[in-house]
Amino acid sequence: MAPHYCIAIDLGGTNLKTALLDPRYKILDRHLLFTGSFSRKADLIRAITRCVETVISRNKLRKKDIVGLGLGLPGPIDVEKKSVHFFPNIPGWKNVALGRILEQKFMVPVFLDNDAKLMALAEHRLGAARGFQHAVCITLGTGVGGGIIIGGRLYRGRDNASSEIGHIPINETGPLCNCGGRACLEAYIGNRRIMQEARRIFGRDIPLEEISRRARRGDRKARALWRAVGTRLGIMLVGVVNMLNPQVIVIGGGVAGAGAVLFERVREVVSAQAMAVQSRKLKIVRAKLGNDAGLIGAAVMVRERTQG
Amino acid sequence: MAPHYCIAIDLGGTNLKTALLDPRYKILDRHLLFTGSFSRKADLIRAITRCVETVISRNKLRKKDIVGLGLGLPGPIDVEKKSVHFFPNIPGWKNVALGRILEQKFMVPVFLDNDAKLMALAEHRLGAARGFQHAVCITLGTGVGGGIIIGGRLYRGRDNASSEIGHIPINETGPLCNCGGRACLEAYIGNRRIMQEARRIFGRDIPLEEISRRARRGDRKARALWRAVGTRLGIMLVGVVNMLNPQVIVIGGGVAGAGAVLFERVREVVSAQAMAVQSRKLKIVRAKLGNDAGLIGAAVMVRERTQG
Repeated sequence: MAPHYCIAIDLGGTNLKTALLDPRYKILDRHLLFTGSFSRKADLIRAITRCVETVISRNKLRKKDIVGLGLGLPGPIDVEKKSVHFFPNIPGWKNVALGRILEQKFMVPVFLDNDAKLMALAEHRLGAARGFQHAVCITLGTGVGGGIIIGGRLYRGRDNASSEIGHIPINETGPLCNCGGRACLEAYIGNRRIMQEARRIFGRDIPLEEISRRARRGDRKARALWRAVGTRLGIMLVGVVNMLNPQVIVIGGGVAGAGAVLFERVREVVSAQAMAVQSRKLKIVRAKLGNDAGLIGAAVMVRERTQG
Repeated sequence: MAPHYCIAIDLGGTNLKTALLDPRYKILDRHLLFTGSFSRKADLIRAITRCVETVISRNKLRKKDIVGLGLGLPGPIDVEKKSVHFFPNIPGWKNVALGRILEQKFMVPVFLDNDAKLMALAEHRLGAARGFQHAVCITLGTGVGGGIIIGGRLYRGRDNASSEIGHIPINETGPLCNCGGRACLEAYIGNRRIMQEARRIFGRDIPLEEISRRARRGDRKARALWRAVGTRLGIMLVGVVNMLNPQVIVIGGGVAGAGAVLFERVREVVSAQAMAVQSRKLKIVRAKLGNDAGLIGAAVMVRERTQG
């Protein structure tokens, strides 16, 4: 019998998620680890291997049951060499051959990709972009990332460093961005920036979920904050729509939880400012797979790559 | 013997160019017509057919000598239906089945596409983007257009309305653009806008070629003008580079004639502000095929489409 299960890992700035998925991408088991304490590279790698071991042992998996191990990682990845170029928000990682390390440890096929690209892959195969040839997927969080689907396939570019949607400038000048650029979308609507803005408006720290709840209840300040986020996201999308003429734009990630007020404003800006032919039939929709998109995308990658 | 020649047409705002090309895309004959007087759609179509007839008769071509007729047109094109959606700068054209009209007239295969896309196709097959898998080609003129090559093929998007590079906003607010958008790159660096700026700086109307000559001679005002154009073009390209991670960016069209001062500034901005992995090996080069790119691209389209 062919191997049956994929093990998926989604590494973020705060959490390391590990999951076991069946052939239909149903999550059968999951394991969550807080990563804040792993400041050294070796510790984080050890934590990853322990999480995989935990999932293997508590599900009594044998090597022949496992199709492969897939990892979604928060930075640019060399997919062919299965190595990490670097992590913008985790120090100490530079050209790390993580794929080889894990293959030697577990003796199963290992595949790596950027987390936002895997979310896009998952949304295309099983979520809101399913059935579309040309799609742009965006994830709004601490970072603003994304993935581009062209002709039904994940578009990578020369170095697999495409679709850095958060790093499209929306002004000629503006705030410096972590990436070294200036006036990038992320420098305006990344989580931290929204929370700063909220502190200014409400006079205290206030979680994003709370701002969303207030907006739903009709709070004018909260609605204005989300509309401002929507305006900037919309302006970036005008350029993307005129440039790529996609069929659908899928928006996910924590900030997308703001819901209707955000999506309405994004659609309003795109329909007012993007070119008529491109915007006419365009769909702008919310991601479907939620927080599990990264895990599902990692498993999709493993299955598609091992099927040759 | 298989048919040998392609007839190519490049329709611009002021000129209608017709050419005869051999299988190696050498231009054997050309015909130029000033189009300013053809304000009615029927007159312009008649002018196109007469130009084709002229090239046919003076080269003594028989129908079996002709591979096909290719047209590069200044607006969005429905490639499958071989029809013109509309021309932004030529009134009276709306959903015109120009391909069918010309096929019935000449009884040879006819293919239509957007002029900027055909320039990109030509630069990819025979010019500065040759040999690259992922390329972005830009043409700077009255309009700012372009074409995207992905995986060695012209990328079209849902409606063949992709690669409207001139209509990427570079500011949240700014001048209204002809396309209905706001703060689009074209609204800052389209020919007309550059000439307005030149009038303001030099106190009189001054042709672009003259500004370029002055810049080459070291005139500070002329150099500052081209650097300002380069800055804005560069900022738009930062977004494109972070988004598409191409191998090469090819810049052509009249404004590219400004030469070194413009290209230096564009490279400076991209290398300072685009992300490191994406900009590291990126080439930004001048187009090679000059004013004939549109004609050559039209002939390439005809050959590639008739070869099945």
